[in-house]
Amino acid sequence: MEFSSKLLENAVYEMSQLPGIGKRTALRLVLHLLRQPKAQTDHLVTALGTLRSTIKFCKKCHSISDEDICDICSNLNRSQDTICVVEDIRDVMAIESTGQYRGLYHVLGGKISPLDGVGPQDLNISSLIEKVNEGQVKELIFALSATMEGDTTNFYIYKQIEGLKVKISTIARGISVNDELEYADEVTLGRSIVNRIPFENALKSP
Amino acid sequence: MEFSSKLLENAVYEMSQLPGIGKRTALRLVLHLLRQPKAQTDHLVTALGTLRSTIKFCKKCHSISDEDICDICSNLNRSQDTICVVEDIRDVMAIESTGQYRGLYHVLGGKISPLDGVGPQDLNISSLIEKVNEGQVKELIFALSATMEGDTTNFYIYKQIEGLKVKISTIARGISVNDELEYADEVTLGRSIVNRIPFENALKSP
Repeated sequence: MEFSSKLLENAVYEMSQLPGIGKRTALRLVLHLLRQPKAQTDHLVTALGTLRSTIKFCKKCHSISDEDICDICSNLNRSQDTICVVEDIRDVMAIESTGQYRGLYHVLGGKISPLDGVGPQDLNISSLIEKVNEGQVKELIFALSATMEGDTTNFYIYKQIEGLKVKISTIARGISVNDELEYADEVTLGRSIVNRIPFENALKSP
Repeated sequence: MEFSSKLLENAVYEMSQLPGIGKRTALRLVLHLLRQPKAQTDHLVTALGTLRSTIKFCKKCHSISDEDICDICSNLNRSQDTICVVEDIRDVMAIESTGQYRGLYHVLGGKISPLDGVGPQDLNISSLIEKVNEGQVKELIFALSATMEGDTTNFYIYKQIEGLKVKISTIARGISVNDELEYADEVTLGRSIVNRIPFENALKSP
């Protein structure tokens, strides 16, 4: 692509560094900004700049927060001895939107993935182990992706705290609500049979 | 979607104002920036900010340019009496990349579209008519989209300069190179038969 303007070329290049945004899409987005009132670009630029320079990570759960301690961690109405281990803040938002969980979170910031060069030391694992070691955690809920990397991370953490007095659970894997059985893959279906639950529990579920 | 941080919410909102970017994609992009070194966000913010505040539009062809007159308009090796009328700078880039055109351009900045509230006065049409009226234009090539709006815009300009001594042509509509006849729509196929060209011309084409 040849550009008539260095400024335009530069803006398109920087935009195309975002994941899933190619050169053509980047050009479309930048041209859109040029057609809109200048205020829109100003707002975008300010929002991104301020976010990146002043954003904090909660000192307890490592989630994104405006304060040193996030709203969830500082909410005393939530049970302080249950910790749900998630990959990133999107998972916190997803679980929060269900309205079914009233404990705290711990954001790892990723999962162990040797192929991507992510080891345990790159994640917020040591602070989690510390929390458990302090003895104030009654239950740890693993809520990572059901992938090889997620399972590896679960297992790594499990090995680190094995023997400590803490209940460790993982979110249920099974058939999605509204899914037809015939379209479910066999691993999921198999697990859902092995880990079947009393029908009374299912009746009580939302 | 509930956000744990106002700053994050604001950044996601501004990002989702871009065309084709929903809230979820915006969140993914913003979280990506947070994971990357701060320099990447700085570069993006500076590039967009500088572009929007210092970009110029060529005074002759209205294309995006770093100078008052763009490189194409100031290139005396290009034939100054042929003007290709296009919608926006992306079309200029597309035509330039073919290497087949050595004239000048005129960027309208859109096409007449009553449904979107875009009338002739919103486009760079009057300056085009002026150029033609000055009598230095020998040929005007319409290269707008082959849509209702494109055709309307073509016809509007045509009506304004009807009777003036200028050759008016439009880019050929026909079967795309490498396309199978059976998959072509009937309007395109019909036009390509009506506007058939001497085989010798096709032989000479690139």
